[in-house]
Amino acid sequence: MALKRHPLLTVDIIISTPDGIVLVRRGREPYKGKWALPGGFVHYGERVEDAAVREAKEETGLRVRLQKLVGVYSDLGRDPRGHVISICFLAAKIGGKLMASDDAVEARAFKRIPWKKLAFDHAKILKNAELGWTHGILSEVR
Amino acid sequence: MALKRHPLLTVDIIISTPDGIVLVRRGREPYKGKWALPGGFVHYGERVEDAAVREAKEETGLRVRLQKLVGVYSDLGRDPRGHVISICFLAAKIGGKLMASDDAVEARAFKRIPWKKLAFDHAKILKNAELGWTHGILSEVR
Repeated sequence: MALKRHPLLTVDIIISTPDGIVLVRRGREPYKGKWALPGGFVHYGERVEDAAVREAKEETGLRVRLQKLVGVYSDLGRDPRGHVISICFLAAKIGGKLMASDDAVEARAFKRIPWKKLAFDHAKILKNAELGWTHGILSEVR
Repeated sequence: MALKRHPLLTVDIIISTPDGIVLVRRGREPYKGKWALPGGFVHYGERVEDAAVREAKEETGLRVRLQKLVGVYSDLGRDPRGHVISICFLAAKIGGKLMASDDAVEARAFKRIPWKKLAFDHAKILKNAELGWTHGILSEVR
């Protein structure tokens, strides 16, 4: 299997706080300078839930508790680096202080999402979540 | 990234029919001879939903319509081949004739699940689904 190309797996986290939804401004390509849901690649051996909690902490400084699985996003065109499949969770802030780090140059809670400045397919993910649609299959805004 | 080890991604499908839940008897290792949910690896470039419909057809002969995302299963120990993360869907039969093929040596609909003869963590997946728990995080039977 080593020579075969496989889809890669990421997690994205919709962190809900009293100040709004937390987004991070990307410090590197792709989509450098755009706002994105906090997230990143799942490590080998890591549970997806643990990856989501880890990435939230690394990129936003916040400790979160996962609340539900929002969907799985796997369109080939969603990431210019190749076939990257993302598992998206909804989470609540339970601690920490909002502060960008790791790949993020800025982290901020938004009451009004900057829809036109979002990276990847994160506008679609957020719209689905906003509609209360929590399953990838039933929920896709196409 | 080529030299780094990544988790691999599969789909598993709980196919509901009037005769029961469809399981396939595995024709190869791991868990050769055990019963499993139909499923398999997601191909590079393939949407997870398309992979689920394709695998259902290949292993059971049935055409299915996906109904919902049941959960994401990512414990390191769930597959002896390494870190294999599975996205599980619930689906309904919409056509075709039940008939094993591909990696499956037998395909059958069960009204009573053979709990002790199941491969991987499929007993856990089925128990979660049976309880109506449809989100990996909230649902794990541990």
